[in-house]
Amino acid sequence: MGLLVQKYGGTSVADPDRIKAVAEHIVRTRQRGDDVVVVVSAMGKTTDDLLRLAYEVAQAPSAREMDMLLTSGERISIALLCMALMDQGVAARSFTGSQAGIVTDTSHGKAKIVEIRSGRVREALEAGDVAVVAGFQGVSTDANITTLGRGGSDTTAVALAAALGADACEIYTDVAGVYTADPRVVPDARKLQRLSFEEMLELSATGGRVLALRSVEFARNHGVPVHVRSSFSWEPGTWVGQEDPTMEQAIISGVSHDVSEAKVTIRRVPDRPGVAAKLFRALADETVNVDMIEQNVSLEGFTDISFTVPRDDLSRAITVMEKMVAETGANGFTHDPDIGRVSLVGAGMKTHPGIAAEMFEVLAAEDVNIEMISTSSIRISCVVREADVEKAVLALHRAFSLGELE
Amino acid sequence: MGLLVQKYGGTSVADPDRIKAVAEHIVRTRQRGDDVVVVVSAMGKTTDDLLRLAYEVAQAPSAREMDMLLTSGERISIALLCMALMDQGVAARSFTGSQAGIVTDTSHGKAKIVEIRSGRVREALEAGDVAVVAGFQGVSTDANITTLGRGGSDTTAVALAAALGADACEIYTDVAGVYTADPRVVPDARKLQRLSFEEMLELSATGGRVLALRSVEFARNHGVPVHVRSSFSWEPGTWVGQEDPTMEQAIISGVSHDVSEAKVTIRRVPDRPGVAAKLFRALADETVNVDMIEQNVSLEGFTDISFTVPRDDLSRAITVMEKMVAETGANGFTHDPDIGRVSLVGAGMKTHPGIAAEMFEVLAAEDVNIEMISTSSIRISCVVREADVEKAVLALHRAFSLGELE
Repeated sequence: MGLLVQKYGGTSVADPDRIKAVAEHIVRTRQRGDDVVVVVSAMGKTTDDLLRLAYEVAQAPSAREMDMLLTSGERISIALLCMALMDQGVAARSFTGSQAGIVTDTSHGKAKIVEIRSGRVREALEAGDVAVVAGFQGVSTDANITTLGRGGSDTTAVALAAALGADACEIYTDVAGVYTADPRVVPDARKLQRLSFEEMLELSATGGRVLALRSVEFARNHGVPVHVRSSFSWEPGTWVGQEDPTMEQAIISGVSHDVSEAKVTIRRVPDRPGVAAKLFRALADETVNVDMIEQNVSLEGFTDISFTVPRDDLSRAITVMEKMVAETGANGFTHDPDIGRVSLVGAGMKTHPGIAAEMFEVLAAEDVNIEMISTSSIRISCVVREADVEKAVLALHRAFSLGELE
Repeated sequence: MGLLVQKYGGTSVADPDRIKAVAEHIVRTRQRGDDVVVVVSAMGKTTDDLLRLAYEVAQAPSAREMDMLLTSGERISIALLCMALMDQGVAARSFTGSQAGIVTDTSHGKAKIVEIRSGRVREALEAGDVAVVAGFQGVSTDANITTLGRGGSDTTAVALAAALGADACEIYTDVAGVYTADPRVVPDARKLQRLSFEEMLELSATGGRVLALRSVEFARNHGVPVHVRSSFSWEPGTWVGQEDPTMEQAIISGVSHDVSEAKVTIRRVPDRPGVAAKLFRALADETVNVDMIEQNVSLEGFTDISFTVPRDDLSRAITVMEKMVAETGANGFTHDPDIGRVSLVGAGMKTHPGIAAEMFEVLAAEDVNIEMISTSSIRISCVVREADVEKAVLALHRAFSLGELE
C-alpha cells in the first residue's frame, strides 16, 4: 500500500482506445492496493491543432490567451480518462491545474510552480478516488491560467509527487526507458535499469529527450524517485534516484547527442575585465539562451570567444553580435548552424580519470574534429560537425562497451 | 456610450475566418464608443466531437466529467476570439465561466445560475478591455465545473447583461431575427421588428428555436432588452423587450410549431381526488417532462387524461403508465408519437376575443383534425396529426395575414 503518481504523455492517450488501455493499467495499480494520482497530457496532436488555429486568427497571439487555449487540451484528456476509469468501475475525479492547486508565477507560456495547494487532491484520495490532474498547467498568483512550458506535464507529476510525499513518480511514455544512446542512432543501445539524478540531469541537458530537464531538477531537489517506462509495453523501465554510494558505479552510463544548437564566435575581442560580462548580458537581455561558452587564451591582449545557442535563437544572437562587435572593438564574428554536440555521461567518471583523453582518442580515430569542449564532474561534451555526430555516437558507444550487458 | 453584451453562437465562430469576422464586428462596436462584454459558444461542431469521444471511452460518462470535457470547447473559442481582437488592435481578456464569476448550483449538465460575481469582468471593462466570457459554463457552489444545459450561452449572456446593468444583450445567430413563422415552412414569413418578453416566451416554449426559453425568462425577470440578429448579415434583427402599453399591439405575432412531442392517453381513470396528482407525480419522479395536459369531462365516475411529453421521454412515460394503469384501476393507455403542435402567439389576443374560434375554423377548412387544445392569455395551441402540421402553419400564417407588411 503506497501512493503512486503516474504521468501519461500525449502519445499514451492519443485516442479513445489508448485512453481505455491507460485506464485498465490504472485499475490494475489500484487493485494492488496503491493510491494513485494521475497526471495526463493533451491527446496526441491536440496541442499542435490548437496552435495552428491560433496562428490562423492572429499573427502574434497573446501569451495569456495562448495559455487559455492550450490548457483546454489537458482538460479534454482528464475528463475522458476519468470517464474511462469509472466505466471500468474505479471511482475517479478530474482536476484542472487550478483545481489541483498548482500555483505558478505569472510568466505565461513558461510559468514556474511556486506552491502546490494539494487539499482537493488529498480529499479525493482520502475518499478512495483516483485523482486525475491536468498536466502542464496551473493558475498564477494573479488568478490567470498559465502553462509550464516544454515538458511541463513531467514537472506537474514530479511536483505533485513531492507535495504529496508519494513513494514514486512513474513517467509513462512511448519509449521503454532511458537508453545508453538514442536507439534510432545506435541499434544495440541498451535500456538502463537505474541512473542517478545527476546523470539524468546531464543526459536531459545534452539531448536526451526522455525526461524534461526541469522535472529532473525538481525530482532531485525533492528526492522523488522517478520510474521512466513505456505505456505500450507496461514493462519495468529505468529508475532515476539518489546515487547509491555503496554500489560501484558504471563508469559511463550513456552517450547523448544534440543537433539543435548553433555556434557563434566573436574574434579578437579586447581581453579586458567586463567585456565577457557585457557580451552575455546583451544576449540575456534579448532572451538568447547561451549553452556552452569557450574563451581562448589571450594573445597580445585579444581573445576569441565561442558559444552555442539554440538554432531558434540564432537570428537574435546575430543581431546582438552586430552591435557588440562595434561596442567592444572586436574584429568581427562568425556563426555556424551545422554543428552538433556529443556527450559522455557517467557518475563513475568522478573516480576514473582519463575518460576525457579516451573520448578524444576515439573521436580522433574516426577522423572527427573537435571544435569545442566542455565538462562537468560526470560529463564530457564535444562540439563537432553535425555530419559527424552519428558516427561519433556509434564509435563512443562501442568503445565504452555500452551495448553489452552490465 | 453604453455597455453591450454580445453573444455569438457556435455557427458564428465555426472557423478562423468566422472568428475574425466576429472580431471585426466587435472592433466596430468598440469604435462607436460602447463597452463590450462578449459571450461565446464552442466552435461549430466541437461539442458534438467531444460528445462522440466521451461515448467512445465510456458507456455512461459521468456528468461531472462530461461538464469538464464539454467546457473545453468554449475555452478554445474565447482564447481564439481574444487573439483575433488583439490582432486587430483591440485589448481583450478572456474569462472562463468560473473566472467570470458565474456561480451555479451543483446540477451537472443542467446547472442553474445562483449568483454572478462580476468583479473581474468589471475590472477588465474599467481597464478599457473587451471582456470575452465562455458561455454555457460556470462553477458550482462546491467548486466543480458545471454546464447550464441547452441554450446555456444565451442564458450566460442575459445573466451577465442583468448583473452588469448592460443597455442591451445582442444575441448573434445564424438567422436574421424572430420570424412570424419558420421560414423553412412558410416562404413569405416576415422578420418581426419587436416582440414582448411574454410573446417571445410563448414562441420559445412552443417550438421557436431562436432563443432558449430560460434566457427569455431571465431577460424578462431582469428587464434586459434583447436584440436577436444575424452574425452573417449584421443587419438589425428583432428586439425583445417590455410590452409597450401605449402602442397598439399586433393581434398575432407569429405561428410556431413543434413536432418533437408524443401524446399519451390513459383511459377510464376513476375520477376521484388525487388520481391526477398520483399520475403526474409518478411521471415527474422518472423525470418525464409533461407539457400539455387535458382531462375530459367525467362520465359515470371515469375520465380520460391526455398529455404530451418529449418523444425522448416516451419510453420512460410508457413504463410509468404500465404501473399507473394497474395502481389506479384505469382501463388502459395509448401512446402516439405522430403528433405535432401548432400555436398562435400574440399579445393583442388579450383584447381581441374570438381568435380561438377563428383558428379552429381555419384548421377545419383545411380538414385538419384538432386532438388537444391548450391556451394562455396570449397563445392558443392545437395538437394535430404530424402530417398536417405544415399545412396548418401555412394556412394560419395566411389567414392572419402575417406575411404582409405591418
